[in-house]
Amino acid sequence: MLKTSVSKATLGRVPQYLKFLKELPGYKFSHISATYIARELGLGEVQVRKDLNAISGAGKPKLGYVTEELIEKLKNCIGQNSMTPAVLVGAGKLGKALLDYDGFEKFGVKIVAAFDCNETVLNIGGRIEILPISQFDDFCRSKNIRIGIITVGEGSAQTVCDKMIKSGIAAIWNFAPCKLNVPEGVLLQNENLALSLAHLNNQLSNLI
Amino acid sequence: MLKTSVSKATLGRVPQYLKFLKELPGYKFSHISATYIARELGLGEVQVRKDLNAISGAGKPKLGYVTEELIEKLKNCIGQNSMTPAVLVGAGKLGKALLDYDGFEKFGVKIVAAFDCNETVLNIGGRIEILPISQFDDFCRSKNIRIGIITVGEGSAQTVCDKMIKSGIAAIWNFAPCKLNVPEGVLLQNENLALSLAHLNNQLSNLI
Repeated sequence: MLKTSVSKATLGRVPQYLKFLKELPGYKFSHISATYIARELGLGEVQVRKDLNAISGAGKPKLGYVTEELIEKLKNCIGQNSMTPAVLVGAGKLGKALLDYDGFEKFGVKIVAAFDCNETVLNIGGRIEILPISQFDDFCRSKNIRIGIITVGEGSAQTVCDKMIKSGIAAIWNFAPCKLNVPEGVLLQNENLALSLAHLNNQLSNLI
Repeated sequence: MLKTSVSKATLGRVPQYLKFLKELPGYKFSHISATYIARELGLGEVQVRKDLNAISGAGKPKLGYVTEELIEKLKNCIGQNSMTPAVLVGAGKLGKALLDYDGFEKFGVKIVAAFDCNETVLNIGGRIEILPISQFDDFCRSKNIRIGIITVGEGSAQTVCDKMIKSGIAAIWNFAPCKLNVPEGVLLQNENLALSLAHLNNQLSNLI
């Protein structure tokens, strides 16, 4: 069953909502309304109402949300109540930069291993182990890995993608600048960094 | 004056349009219609029409676009007819990964120098020079740099941002996971990688 997923923009505001709600004096706020949150955070009321509705359903008329329940729903939404393990394939510079980045865990995802076919990058003593690609399938199946990150070049991205799906991965975050074919039911999210920069450049060239 | 800028999704399709148009036999296609392009590329006609309209205005009724002109407009749009220089501040792992990435030039942006305050990363013999931050202002002014990329940590991102704006930079691509304040007229594009992964994780948790 596919439930509605929350948009990236909404997700981006969740940490702000959580911080605000956790700092409220509990004895005063057993319930809280979208209107109040919007006013205190200086956000649009329609937006806050839409965000909370996507995450926690509609609030009760006149009462709003049970604060404790809303906090739990917000935490679940950004994965703070659980940690999803992910693996990465391609331990080049970009791959290593992602391995070194410590912001993912705040959002409930932990890169637990990286794989590469180049033996010279293996076991370089970083925070996360880099394993030979030959161990990929066993590793993913034994740890029930569902998220894979592709940071190999364009030439081998589809091969890596196929390998991931065969090993049970259901969500792929792809940094290779090419289109990947995935079967229905597998989530694919492309991250095209060049395109982001091109977009900024295009906006800049229109500012005269 | 602020002209309409082209969306990131449209920009992402431009290379596909260009490739297709350049491969057409010129003697047969002095003009081309959005309908024809859409059909040949297997894209929605409404989408192609909107894309081309944003980039090159409306085509002529029954004739469509002059192919040569459309190719030039598409090239301009993704910066293939000019190269915008950019600088990067923060030569840690992520910064170095971006310096090493060769996909930006295809989209008309070239990172011409990187800066860091940590002297141990200076002049490490990579493709792009890493200079001490003390040379930042002179460098940007003398080369008329308009795009800056921030890959420092959260703690120093606002300082770097202010420094960039003081040196004449008008468009900032920020990888630090924090909000930056920029004056009106300065473009700011935030790249929150953790949020992208969180979004994928959220979609995955809704797939049951």
